Amino acid sequence: MRVIGIDPGLARVGYGIIEVKNEKKIMLDCGVIETNKEKQEEYRLYEIFKDLNELIKYWNPNVAAVEKFFFYRSSTTISVVQARGVIMMVLASRKIQVSEYAPAQIKLTIAGSGKASKKEVLESVMNDLKLKKAPKPDDSADALAIALTKLNEEGFN
Amino acid sequence: MRVIGIDPGLARVGYGIIEVKNEKKIMLDCGVIETNKEKQEEYRLYEIFKDLNELIKYWNPNVAAVEKFFFYRSSTTISVVQARGVIMMVLASRKIQVSEYAPAQIKLTIAGSGKASKKEVLESVMNDLKLKKAPKPDDSADALAIALTKLNEEGFN
Repeated sequence: MRVIGIDPGLARVGYGIIEVKNEKKIMLDCGVIETNKEKQEEYRLYEIFKDLNELIKYWNPNVAAVEKFFFYRSSTTISVVQARGVIMMVLASRKIQVSEYAPAQIKLTIAGSGKASKKEVLESVMNDLKLKKAPKPDDSADALAIALTKLNEEGFN
Repeated sequence: MRVIGIDPGLARVGYGIIEVKNEKKIMLDCGVIETNKEKQEEYRLYEIFKDLNELIKYWNPNVAAVEKFFFYRSSTTISVVQARGVIMMVLASRKIQVSEYAPAQIKLTIAGSGKASKKEVLESVMNDLKLKKAPKPDDSADALAIALTKLNEEGFN
């Protein structure tokens, strides 16, 4: 099982790729897709489309986990939801099965509390994946947490 | 100038294609892209991606007009905004210049009042395009109104 975790955004899309081999979780890659702030929004969506397709072609994950959005959250804007639409569509086009997790669910699964801090989530991710250094940039740690939530649900905890 | 007007949605995407030739506005096509309600959302987004690409390949519009969304409107949900993201991305990928119009702006331009009823907008669209019958289905009349708003802005009124 190889899972891609995705933290959607318009300016930055965090991603983390984890493989389970012999019951061990191995981080293969993590990072962010950054889009050009100078460009119009639709062109930034197209950048996400192209870059995510490249990433999937390269790593070939068979499952995906994506953060779920809610409108009552102040950080949820038209722009990030549009970007999430492009991401979900790309995953479907590649026939990758998608699971969605709410932020509180991710925190609960990874750090033991739905109200865990960013730091607590980061530490749990590092522990779980046996990383010596914090994954950079920050957005990629969130994406790894999302991927780990999926693996936890599948019994790899 | 050939414009595609788009009324975004997840279940139904309304579209209308209008060409200006010798100062005359000619409706070339109108209709809706309907997605399969039985399928998961991401696959419906992929249907929109494929169908809109086909439509653009066939009609080759050089400009697009898309309804603008606002979160305070009850009809604006995560699903329709995600669909709009896919639509905007497809237009950018085809290098089609996109204009966005708020519902009140469309009604004001087409029917003379930002609070015009659906029926008034429909009648104005029919008058403007010299249509003898109402375009079917309803969603396509809205898409034609959006396309006409763009043409109006360009001086074809």
